[in-house]
Amino acid sequence: MAAHSLSLTITRSRAPLALRRLLPPRLAAAPASRRLSSSSSSSAATATRAWRPGLAGYPPLRPRAATGAGAGRRRIGSELVGCRAMSGSENSTVAAELGVAERSGNVEQLPFVNDKHGGVIIQMVSPMDPAVFSASLKAALAKWREQGIRGVWIKLPITLSNLITPAVEEGFWYHHAEETYLMLAYWLPNTTHTLPVNATHRVGVGAFIMNDKREVLAVQEKSGVLRGLGVWKFPTGVIEPGEDINVGAVREVKEETGIDAEFVEVLAFRQSHKAFFDKSDLFFVCLLRPLSYDITKQDSEIEACQWMPVEEFAAQPFVQKHELVKYILEVSLAKVDKEYAGFSPISIKSAFTDKLSLFYMNRRDLDKASGSSSQ
Amino acid sequence: MAAHSLSLTITRSRAPLALRRLLPPRLAAAPASRRLSSSSSSSAATATRAWRPGLAGYPPLRPRAATGAGAGRRRIGSELVGCRAMSGSENSTVAAELGVAERSGNVEQLPFVNDKHGGVIIQMVSPMDPAVFSASLKAALAKWREQGIRGVWIKLPITLSNLITPAVEEGFWYHHAEETYLMLAYWLPNTTHTLPVNATHRVGVGAFIMNDKREVLAVQEKSGVLRGLGVWKFPTGVIEPGEDINVGAVREVKEETGIDAEFVEVLAFRQSHKAFFDKSDLFFVCLLRPLSYDITKQDSEIEACQWMPVEEFAAQPFVQKHELVKYILEVSLAKVDKEYAGFSPISIKSAFTDKLSLFYMNRRDLDKASGSSSQ
Repeated sequence: MAAHSLSLTITRSRAPLALRRLLPPRLAAAPASRRLSSSSSSSAATATRAWRPGLAGYPPLRPRAATGAGAGRRRIGSELVGCRAMSGSENSTVAAELGVAERSGNVEQLPFVNDKHGGVIIQMVSPMDPAVFSASLKAALAKWREQGIRGVWIKLPITLSNLITPAVEEGFWYHHAEETYLMLAYWLPNTTHTLPVNATHRVGVGAFIMNDKREVLAVQEKSGVLRGLGVWKFPTGVIEPGEDINVGAVREVKEETGIDAEFVEVLAFRQSHKAFFDKSDLFFVCLLRPLSYDITKQDSEIEACQWMPVEEFAAQPFVQKHELVKYILEVSLAKVDKEYAGFSPISIKSAFTDKLSLFYMNRRDLDKASGSSSQ
Repeated sequence: MAAHSLSLTITRSRAPLALRRLLPPRLAAAPASRRLSSSSSSSAATATRAWRPGLAGYPPLRPRAATGAGAGRRRIGSELVGCRAMSGSENSTVAAELGVAERSGNVEQLPFVNDKHGGVIIQMVSPMDPAVFSASLKAALAKWREQGIRGVWIKLPITLSNLITPAVEEGFWYHHAEETYLMLAYWLPNTTHTLPVNATHRVGVGAFIMNDKREVLAVQEKSGVLRGLGVWKFPTGVIEPGEDINVGAVREVKEETGIDAEFVEVLAFRQSHKAFFDKSDLFFVCLLRPLSYDITKQDSEIEACQWMPVEEFAAQPFVQKHELVKYILEVSLAKVDKEYAGFSPISIKSAFTDKLSLFYMNRRDLDKASGSSSQ
């Protein structure tokens, strides 16, 4: 299992297939100096990505083979967003490369940093005339191509949206966007590109909480497909960016109902696709233990909230016909009444940094096993 | 637990906080007709999202209250991407709204469809002069504001990147981007916006496969942070867009090693943050059972591949110091040698459509429990 690295091996031609289908000839064609590689396009249809995650360690144990001046020094990834931080103490060797603007006729040096995978990240901060940007980009790409640079990224704040078209005209495609910026990407070598895919999943949580009177915490929502139908459901919500599942489940319950609770286990999860904007969804069924009992309903989202006898909850026609709710009830009742083990989290550290993450596993079984294990 | 619906309740001001910090006054300010609501900006710092997923049902059981002409007919979401398909047979009522271009002086009617949440989706397909687009957008927004339309989306193919700046100047922000298009969003009412968050997670898999000689399938990779270090690791990979976890694990093993395998269980998973581009990562540890044994190494990504005695694998110094690998070994050996139950998938159906998804749970415990359960 390789460490998280942005050096992928993607078997497809450098210009994404969908993009090449969409672009008019002027934009779809590689610059003249790169047209030799156009024969690779037929492989795009059988694209297979092999970007492999696994270990959470950064930075790399050793730099990748430098393929150009300054290559192999920075990785693209977690440090990328929030580019001002990149010139901080950890990246003093990089800082000098930022903000260097040498005017030379109609060409300015673009602010960029090298990444650890033989690529560069252009981080535009200040406005620039689109024509100057275009000329500067052309010059930079020509230089980087000679130097053997691989991936080129452009991070454009929304305030500099007028620079998108010049970048697209040079062959860049969109990689991802957040509210305040667009990230574009390009691949210089005459090889298949090895850039990582964009995020593919949204993560949701549902909370099963039962008090000692066998009442479950149930809500009716003001919006959504069950609006106005009188259906009682478990508190659910979407994980915030950067939030842990166990934290998100407790937060959602508190927000919707005012109930304090502690996380116990992930009892099950569901993966579904095309949930929104063609993206997928992972929904984690969480068992929580109540720490308070007085309900304070959130008025903006929640129509009603109560501690509801579990039999009454289960008897709803909606629950009877809905497989997901049926299974949530089954695993939850198995957990509180029988010997059902879900996954509980422990904090683990990366081998390479002090970064922590949560590892969810069947701890009951593992503890039993280790009691007599020879491993 | 509400069905997937794009009608969120997000407690924050309509202009995203990060965006308002970034934008120059001209862009950050709401249009004059909307400035009354600017006092809501202080709530943005304590933004809480409450977009609630859960049941996979579409379409809504009944349309949301229509707030404008044609409102309540389409949902934003899975059907959104690939807009040409929207005018297909399933959406004949919508088709008539597309492609209507009435020239009226310097203003054209923009091609749009209504969504099921009282909003509209502008789907630009053909080039338009940016000045005409700007005037047309202004006119459309004024009309929609009067009609009580809520969210407004603009889907812009990469070929129409010259229309991004006019949209941003009207107050639109970036919602997400894929290779070939950018989606912008805007919120018309004088309320906090209720638009869904972008995808937050990438999903990876690691495969533990052992043959009956207690040898595990192990690879050395040609790239990544372990490159050239002689470290043997489990096959890993990233889930493709729209791919099931169990399918992705089998695919990755086949691609890297040529070994056919069948999926058994998810033994554990890890959630980590800021894994790439500030996004989070869910990594699922999968137990697979080999169906073939002759290795055919993938040359482009894999340096070496072998069936390796598990003790030898575990003895690697790298494994010893890496908590994630240590736990993967622990749960996997507990599984093959002891009584460790992971999560196995069953196919479940939505209550609202025939759409299937996979529900992963501790089936061993559930089967035991249901044997004597009164539920």
